[in-house]
Amino acid sequence: MEGGKGREREGEGGEGRGGQGGGEEPRGRSRAAPDSIKQWKREGKIAVWLHIPILQSSFIASAVSQGFTFHHAEGDSSTLTLWLGDGNSRLPGYATHQLGVAGAVLDNSTGKVLVVQDKNKTTNAWKFPGGLSDPGEDIGDTAVREVFEETGIKSEFKSILSIRQQHRHPGAFGKSDMYIICRLEPSSFNISFCQQECLRCEWMDLDELAKTKDATPITSSVAKLLLYGYREGFDKIDITMKEFSAVYTGLVYKLYHRELPESYKDMGGL
Amino acid sequence: MEGGKGREREGEGGEGRGGQGGGEEPRGRSRAAPDSIKQWKREGKIAVWLHIPILQSSFIASAVSQGFTFHHAEGDSSTLTLWLGDGNSRLPGYATHQLGVAGAVLDNSTGKVLVVQDKNKTTNAWKFPGGLSDPGEDIGDTAVREVFEETGIKSEFKSILSIRQQHRHPGAFGKSDMYIICRLEPSSFNISFCQQECLRCEWMDLDELAKTKDATPITSSVAKLLLYGYREGFDKIDITMKEFSAVYTGLVYKLYHRELPESYKDMGGL
Repeated sequence: MEGGKGREREGEGGEGRGGQGGGEEPRGRSRAAPDSIKQWKREGKIAVWLHIPILQSSFIASAVSQGFTFHHAEGDSSTLTLWLGDGNSRLPGYATHQLGVAGAVLDNSTGKVLVVQDKNKTTNAWKFPGGLSDPGEDIGDTAVREVFEETGIKSEFKSILSIRQQHRHPGAFGKSDMYIICRLEPSSFNISFCQQECLRCEWMDLDELAKTKDATPITSSVAKLLLYGYREGFDKIDITMKEFSAVYTGLVYKLYHRELPESYKDMGGL
Repeated sequence: MEGGKGREREGEGGEGRGGQGGGEEPRGRSRAAPDSIKQWKREGKIAVWLHIPILQSSFIASAVSQGFTFHHAEGDSSTLTLWLGDGNSRLPGYATHQLGVAGAVLDNSTGKVLVVQDKNKTTNAWKFPGGLSDPGEDIGDTAVREVFEETGIKSEFKSILSIRQQHRHPGAFGKSDMYIICRLEPSSFNISFCQQECLRCEWMDLDELAKTKDATPITSSVAKLLLYGYREGFDKIDITMKEFSAVYTGLVYKLYHRELPESYKDMGGL
């Protein structure tokens, strides 16, 4: 398994689970708990996962007295963990990043690009429309959806242009933010922008956006990159997408990288 | 603010908070709660955030009876939310992605690349060493750290080669996985691999890795990409990094995209 390793999860040596069902009482509460934990330790277990339905949350305090802490919670249940192994916990953490995606929609026939100014900001800088990914949503789909919601413009995903990583991002509840700007091609051109989110929205000369001081630094960088691609060929700037099937799960995933010449694609391997 | 928008967070019209302090009882429990909620609604508030220290978790059930659900929880506290506005909640979700990073360490003088086989797998496929990002850790730092922990090889970050997004990733607690492979240059060459994590580890001819059937599909793709760069110049494949200061917070962030010619960098803007 790629991308999901590096910590103990498969190698926990068994798990003690309690309170998985809807109304049942979590196992191992009150006096039983310390005994269970001692036994699990004797059996060589190195971690205990405790799943608690939200309505059974009164049992959390007694789990805490045994050393459990929150691993995560969402909707109507929480998950607590207790590390029994040597040293610091090697249990995998929960999701660490939110994902924001913006779309740089360029009209190739006019050289104009779609930009917005956010409402309720102290400085009115131009930027590309975008927003947070919905759970389970692909990068390109977020870009297309957010552009449409904010500006009324329909578009198609072409490539990824840039990726930004920022930690302790404002509004991310102490977590990190991944922010991806995509290149999109418009299929409609009449702006009808969201009055709640945007102060202004317009098709601006890409050349002008690349030069203006009234743009956020990242918008300015990507505008220059897009201008370079517009003039010299988008193959100079595109990070393109290929779809794969994950053999071991049947899940589909998308891989983004620089375009590979055909001679390399055909050289064998998988 | 880029990347952190698209949902209501700043525009909530005020928040009702309870139980922020260490030992104090959350405000608005029992009979008080419905009255508070009615009043907040009258005042035009559209959402309530409730922060509950883990030891006060017995109050969660009464919050649930008022319609609260978990937004997130970590360590010693949980956060619940109640949407009071019209329609579906427009509150921003919690982090949606875990981040895995691997390192493709290529020895330019020999054309060999560092590969491992995971322990405890049904199929023994070659792959690049890597693992999950620690909270707050930069992409390149994760690659360098994981490569060192798994193989004993010291290396330096050069560029991002590929990005994969996969939803409902195994081991991600129902969340999505972002998996980034970086190009690294080695500064040490004697392998001393982690016996707990790896079955095998070796320097393999890049050409051989690109052709073998004994590699995961993503490893095979990236090996071909790396071979193309090795032969024709890494500028063909690199997604390079530039560091920025976020003006509004003073935080530093890293932006990755295709290299831009100097003439474009100097054209004005920010």
